[in-house]
This record gives sequence, structure tokens and C-alpha cells, in this order.
Amino acid sequence: MVYIKVVTDGSPYGEPRLSCMSVGFLLKKKGDSVVWRGPKKNAMIRQFLSDVRWGDLDYLVIDTPPGTSDEHLSLLEHLAPVHSRLSAVIVTTPQAVALIDAMKCLSFTRTVSLPVLGLIENMSGYVCPCCGEISNVFSTGGGEEMARREGLPFLGSMPVDTELVTLLDAAEVEPTSNESSDKSFELLQRYQKTSSANLFTAITQKLIQTLPGVEQSSSEANTR
Amino acid sequence: MVYIKVVTDGSPYGEPRLSCMSVGFLLKKKGDSVVWRGPKKNAMIRQFLSDVRWGDLDYLVIDTPPGTSDEHLSLLEHLAPVHSRLSAVIVTTPQAVALIDAMKCLSFTRTVSLPVLGLIENMSGYVCPCCGEISNVFSTGGGEEMARREGLPFLGSMPVDTELVTLLDAAEVEPTSNESSDKSFELLQRYQKTSSANLFTAITQKLIQTLPGVEQSSSEANTR
Repeated sequence: MVYIKVVTDGSPYGEPRLSCMSVGFLLKKKGDSVVWRGPKKNAMIRQFLSDVRWGDLDYLVIDTPPGTSDEHLSLLEHLAPVHSRLSAVIVTTPQAVALIDAMKCLSFTRTVSLPVLGLIENMSGYVCPCCGEISNVFSTGGGEEMARREGLPFLGSMPVDTELVTLLDAAEVEPTSNESSDKSFELLQRYQKTSSANLFTAITQKLIQTLPGVEQSSSEANTR
Repeated sequence: MVYIKVVTDGSPYGEPRLSCMSVGFLLKKKGDSVVWRGPKKNAMIRQFLSDVRWGDLDYLVIDTPPGTSDEHLSLLEHLAPVHSRLSAVIVTTPQAVALIDAMKCLSFTRTVSLPVLGLIENMSGYVCPCCGEISNVFSTGGGEEMARREGLPFLGSMPVDTELVTLLDAAEVEPTSNESSDKSFELLQRYQKTSSANLFTAITQKLIQTLPGVEQSSSEANTR
């Protein structure tokens, strides 16, 4: 029997907390590969949803892999009893090829009647650390244009933030034992000072604002 | 019955040609989603390997999705009769999180005894179009260091090339009918002038040079 509790911020007494679960926590070594076909992934998804002691949750955020495959179908199957409370957020980068993949995602959500809360454009521009010029690494505005064309709320753009990359890369090499939990909180404090933190906050606020509309359309909204 | 012939360069009379196949060619609309579980993907992979009129091939290059899942296992199953002639190339970006995924790939190739021809670092730096400063968008040198640590040949770095992105994005919006084949050749000519084209050529040459070593270790090398 394995018991893993992962809490990244806040305290158990009132403050908001972020709990998380990942296959990665169950591996002996970070670099170990998980070579699984669909049915085994399906079983793991079921376990993550039902056997993890999540406690009372306001929101459950699931970061799905790219594509529209076993993971996405299994999630919808296992979450069918709460289907009316499910919704999706689509993340894309601005290049034409990435937008085609985002369109495939959107086509999938429409097929399975999953409301889409909105679209986020990642890797949207880059601030040169030398001259401060913001250049569009991977073309520009494709996500915003797609959102407009498809009638989706545009939730925001995330430019490439080298500061955040450096911060996260430094965290990766540190061990994740209990002794390092102080360091994790230090990391969160340093994250709050990056320009990305403000952008993430704005996106989260927009997201939460779009939720009531989705929940009103649900027959289960009052039981929540 | 569907018959699709896709040839992107050269001529059928002697010159080298590049033929390709993709699920995308079979979709009515580019944005349509392919919602398939593993067994159906497995069947499509088998069809692509056996039912496409590839003709005589020098090399068959398969661009696999990220991860180590149904697609990778099915490919190895279907290609088992030629296992001794198979090999892999690992592509990573330089961030610590991406390198962990690349390590998982490497762990997979070792589990299934697949020789690795080398490692390529993508998104390795960015040339500011304003001041010409080369900055490391996503940290730097991680791929090269991983190759050294794991005893793999380092095949090269591909910086972010906005010229190539613009070129490909412009191509995406053009229709892919027969009438536009002239435009496709024009695109190839413009591609040859990008800085990426030289880098790709160098990587390909390095790759081809590492192949004889892999083939010598194969019992089927002489029958090739």
C-alpha cells in the first residue's frame, strides 16, 4: 500500500491549499519510463480519481496530454456522473500548426458536449533580455484570433518568461524530500515576484468569472 | 478505397524523393479530431506500414508522439521482423523538465533494445531580430550535457528560427490541391535559404554517418 500526500502551499487550517497527484510520484527514479497501453492508463486514471484522498475540493484541474485519445476518453467515462460540472480550457501556441491541433481539441470537446471556458495562448512573444524588444518568437495573435472566430472567451497570453524557466529548472535539481519543503515555499515566494505570476493570476480570475455561466446551465448546479 | 500519393520533392526518375503519409491526409477537415483508443491507432499504424505503396525506401522516418505508449509499442510489434535495422533519435528542448521526459524516452529505448543514434536539442536559443543578441529562451546546453552523460552522440542544436515559422505558417493557409504543387516546390526553395536548412543538413549528415555502426551490429546488415 502506498500513501503519498502532496500539498504545495497553504495550511490545513482554513487557508487555501493546492494538492496534487502524478504518476511521477510513484516512480523510483525521475527518468524511469512508464510504458503503458491504454487500458493500464485507464486504470490509473480511475485510481487517481477515486483512491486519492482529495478531501473537499473547490476545483479539480486535470492537465491532459496532447491529443484526443485513451486518457481523454477514460476521463470522460469516469467523470460521467458529474459530466454537467465538467469544462475544458484549451491552451495553444500561436503557430498555424499548433492552432490546427487546438482546433482538433475544440472539435473533440464539441463532440463530447464539454463546455469550453476559453483559450490561452502560450509562448506568445519573448522579451529580449538584452534590448527589451518584445518579439514574436512563434508568429503572433493566432490564439486570440482563433478564440474570436470560434466564439470562445480569450483568457490571456503567456509570453516566454526566462525568469520562470530558470526558477523551475533550479527547483528540478533539488531533492523533493520532506526536508526541502521549506525550499519549496521559498520557490513559491520567488515565483510570486515573476511577471508570469501576475499573468497567471489574471487568467485564473477570468476563468473563475466564466464558471458561474457554465454552472447555471447545469441541472446539478444547486447541489454543489 | 482511398488512394493518396504524397511526394514532396524530386522526381520519379532517379532523383531522391521524400514520400509521406499522415492520418491528417485522411481527414475531411484539418481541424477534425481523431478520437481513437489504442487498438484503433494500432490498426492504423499497421495499415500505414503495410498498405501504403512506399516503393523502395532507403530510410523510413517515423515521427512518434511524445510519451511511451500504444503508438510506440505497436510500432515495435509491427516492425519486429526488422528489429535489428531499427534505431531511434531523441529530440528534446533544453529545460530541466523536458530533459526528464527525454530521459524517460531513453529508458524506454534501453528497455526494448533500440539503438539510439543520438540526441538533438530543439528551441536551443533565439536570435533577437532587433539587436541580433542570441539569448537562451529555455536555459541552455541541457541536451548536449545529457548526451555526454548518457554516452549518446550529440547531433546538433536547432535555435528558434522565426523565418522558418513564418514560412511554414504562410504555407499552412494555402490549399494543398494539385494546383498548388508549384507553390510547394517554391516553398522548398525558400526553405533552402533559411539558416535552419543548413543546420538540418548538418544533423542529417551526422545521422547518416552514425548509421553504419548500427548496421554492422545487425545480423541482417548484409541483406539490406
